[in-house]
Amino acid sequence: MALEKHGKAIDLSHHLSDLSRARGTSPLKGLIKYVTKPGTISLAGGMPHPSYFPYADISANALASDNFALEPTRPDSSVSWFWKLFGAGSSKEKIMPITIPKCPSQADDINLAVSLQYGTAQGLVQLQEFLKELVGKVYKPAYSDWTTLVQTGNTDGWSRALQTLCNPGELILTEEWTYPSALANSQPFNIFPVPIAMDSEGMRSDDLRKVLSEWDETARGGKRPHVMYTVPVGQNPSGATMGLERKKEIYDICVEFDIIIVEDDPYYFLQEGQYKPKSERSSQSAHKDPGDFIANLVPSYLKVDYQGRVIRLDTFSKTIAPGSRLGFFTCNPRFAERLERHGETTTQAPCGFGQSLITQLLKSWGYEGYTRWLHGLAVQYTGRRDYIIDCFAEEFHLRSSIGTTGIWNGLEVYDLYAKPKRNASGLEKFDFGPKLISFVPPTSGMFIWKVMRNLSRRNSSLSWPRVESSLHLVGSSLRRITSWTAVKGTFGYPFPTLTSMH
Amino acid sequence: MALEKHGKAIDLSHHLSDLSRARGTSPLKGLIKYVTKPGTISLAGGMPHPSYFPYADISANALASDNFALEPTRPDSSVSWFWKLFGAGSSKEKIMPITIPKCPSQADDINLAVSLQYGTAQGLVQLQEFLKELVGKVYKPAYSDWTTLVQTGNTDGWSRALQTLCNPGELILTEEWTYPSALANSQPFNIFPVPIAMDSEGMRSDDLRKVLSEWDETARGGKRPHVMYTVPVGQNPSGATMGLERKKEIYDICVEFDIIIVEDDPYYFLQEGQYKPKSERSSQSAHKDPGDFIANLVPSYLKVDYQGRVIRLDTFSKTIAPGSRLGFFTCNPRFAERLERHGETTTQAPCGFGQSLITQLLKSWGYEGYTRWLHGLAVQYTGRRDYIIDCFAEEFHLRSSIGTTGIWNGLEVYDLYAKPKRNASGLEKFDFGPKLISFVPPTSGMFIWKVMRNLSRRNSSLSWPRVESSLHLVGSSLRRITSWTAVKGTFGYPFPTLTSMH
Repeated sequence: MALEKHGKAIDLSHHLSDLSRARGTSPLKGLIKYVTKPGTISLAGGMPHPSYFPYADISANALASDNFALEPTRPDSSVSWFWKLFGAGSSKEKIMPITIPKCPSQADDINLAVSLQYGTAQGLVQLQEFLKELVGKVYKPAYSDWTTLVQTGNTDGWSRALQTLCNPGELILTEEWTYPSALANSQPFNIFPVPIAMDSEGMRSDDLRKVLSEWDETARGGKRPHVMYTVPVGQNPSGATMGLERKKEIYDICVEFDIIIVEDDPYYFLQEGQYKPKSERSSQSAHKDPGDFIANLVPSYLKVDYQGRVIRLDTFSKTIAPGSRLGFFTCNPRFAERLERHGETTTQAPCGFGQSLITQLLKSWGYEGYTRWLHGLAVQYTGRRDYIIDCFAEEFHLRSSIGTTGIWNGLEVYDLYAKPKRNASGLEKFDFGPKLISFVPPTSGMFIWKVMRNLSRRNSSLSWPRVESSLHLVGSSLRRITSWTAVKGTFGYPFPTLTSMH
Repeated sequence: MALEKHGKAIDLSHHLSDLSRARGTSPLKGLIKYVTKPGTISLAGGMPHPSYFPYADISANALASDNFALEPTRPDSSVSWFWKLFGAGSSKEKIMPITIPKCPSQADDINLAVSLQYGTAQGLVQLQEFLKELVGKVYKPAYSDWTTLVQTGNTDGWSRALQTLCNPGELILTEEWTYPSALANSQPFNIFPVPIAMDSEGMRSDDLRKVLSEWDETARGGKRPHVMYTVPVGQNPSGATMGLERKKEIYDICVEFDIIIVEDDPYYFLQEGQYKPKSERSSQSAHKDPGDFIANLVPSYLKVDYQGRVIRLDTFSKTIAPGSRLGFFTCNPRFAERLERHGETTTQAPCGFGQSLITQLLKSWGYEGYTRWLHGLAVQYTGRRDYIIDCFAEEFHLRSSIGTTGIWNGLEVYDLYAKPKRNASGLEKFDFGPKLISFVPPTSGMFIWKVMRNLSRRNSSLSWPRVESSLHLVGSSLRRITSWTAVKGTFGYPFPTLTSMH
């Protein structure tokens, strides 16, 4: 593959949907040329005066970027670890107060007069600047005129990307197992997914090539897809993480078959590395500092995207909070312009309360601070991932083996059995009982994916991709089959309360 | 018209679009039945733990609900009035501090652990309760099972209503002049508007009946519309306000022809009444208290909607701030359910920062406080409306006459001429020059609509409705033609700075 770095994006506008092509410029924005004409005094649009915003200022006790330590915690027991994670820890928070005044003191201060006013679908200028810096330094796109554009989270992002690229009735490429809400978005448009086989790195390039090169319109019931939806890091639901080489292979195939890649990447900064059993775990940090942490993350598709055919979806849902309803596209300027037009007729700008509180925090932290926050967060999630698997190891009998089929192939698979029960006379029955679940510790993201092995056969490539459906049932099975009285949790929340389980 | 009040909504699901019918239940929400099954321990969805939200708490110096006086201000001069409105007033703000902690002290406290977490597209429970109370008390819908549902502002609201009701290629009913952004939303779907003639109350019922009863599919190029988009209060751009009788007439026609009314009503609480010249203005308040103010607002279409065929769009953009990106539908439960499904695949819940700061304010104010705030706001906007027209009267020569055609018919129309200029010798030339603009003082909303009289002819009913396009040009014309050095502003913002105009 020839990486012609830092050229401009090629013209990919033939991928735009009929709907997207039909979108005009916002009629009110069309007036701007008159308003900015010398001699014109704007009598304004329907903008309330800021004195009528019922907030004189907004402030927050935000957390410092180094609130979470970078050293892995090594608990003496599950319970102490538990309390460290969920107990009195909040009293030790490092607080960094921020305030957003109604009016700015300095010209570029974030202020409510602007952030609570009507704004463009591009969002606050200060946020745009931060995102530009972040994308440039972390993802290093391989073409020069990439653009960022805010959205209200990756659900909105995927919804807009889908409608910008696909006409009703088209087919899209997805992983064999994929995120159910992504399909809920495309299904009402009669846009159906074409599943591509997976392995431990997620989508397989060999199967992608096979599907595309052997495409039969009649058998498939539609034209060869020109859009791919993929979750390459902390793949939902498998937890797989795709490295640079695989991404290059897939990207080159997408160049060859002229496919746009929509890279939905909410878990990018939650890369946790390989799980090691407690006894084998190092007390060393995996990365010496945030710079080292960022440098060792698997690269985004943007890193290999020399043509501008990737629409990357980033969200603050996992790194700040889901209620942020704030995320951003990174893509070529032509697509960004169309995505912005779509935003103008739906969400307009993201919420000004959220934009200003998040942007003020990001500005106060700075790029260095934000990467420190992300590094701390990754250490936390790694600890949580390790913790729940440690708990499985303590409460159940775990046997490991090397998988041989499908996505398990070559991976260390953990099979989980109930521990021996004591009978009425107090004697142990040395019967491990049936295998309860099998899982592969995830390397990124928030999920331990449990699959009954006999369900892991690959679907035929024409069928609907399978979606994660049984995660919530694990607890049920466990409770039914064993005497285990405490589910030890997931990476996420809610964490079941201890009292209800004893 | 037989008002069968407080029955349930009739089944209007035949109005749903193909897209809306095709939407399934959210697949993750489909799991809830398993999670809530006794014996199941949820291992949770992808929800970050709240300790990872980098805000320990959020607070605001909000304004008290009685921040703005209820008595009309009677300035001695334009300039003192000006400074009262835009000058040092902010130092006299009545502050009401609010705080949103991460964790609740009381079970129903608004808190960041919930509001910054993933939530349903129904929004915060406390906000739902407030909206239910507000709609019940202010709009008094004429059927019993009406429902409210949050959205992210009326642009999102109209976008969702449009896609829930209309298939591409359909026609919709609108006022003869209408809001350009509403058309920007429908146009990419090849959904075209059918303009209905207007008068001083907005859409005319006689023309509506004529258009519908004489509908000719061949001549019109499509089926008779089944959806109406209307701005009945502070109509955009005319500023017209529709009373109860006209609404009843139009509603009955919509029952007869089976039409769904989408009532876009951002200016509902900015009802200002008739403009009176300064010399004739009373020092009395128009309404004795907020209860009286609310009781005297023209009723919403909901008041006559005994079948549940109105989708009302409310927004906090004009009453709190545009950056709120928060509003709500009021409609029948079947439509609400479909609108919610749409929301799940786009915005999800509105931003949690905005939801919690706004809901906390509304809860702190209470219903009584919020209506007090709205009453104060209406007095302010009435003052601004009066002020700018007073300024026109001071700086220009105004002549009033009774309009005879189209939307001007029977209304007091103001024609605006340049004042006599002094020539070099100091003598006045008693030449009023050409008429600059004509306008009718608005009775609601934020806009003074200026129309060149020779442009006010009605479009043929098949043509595209005309959209407001020249508001921003008024200042330009004025500056060019006259020696006037200060544009006195609109109701809105930005208010040109004084210094730049002297």
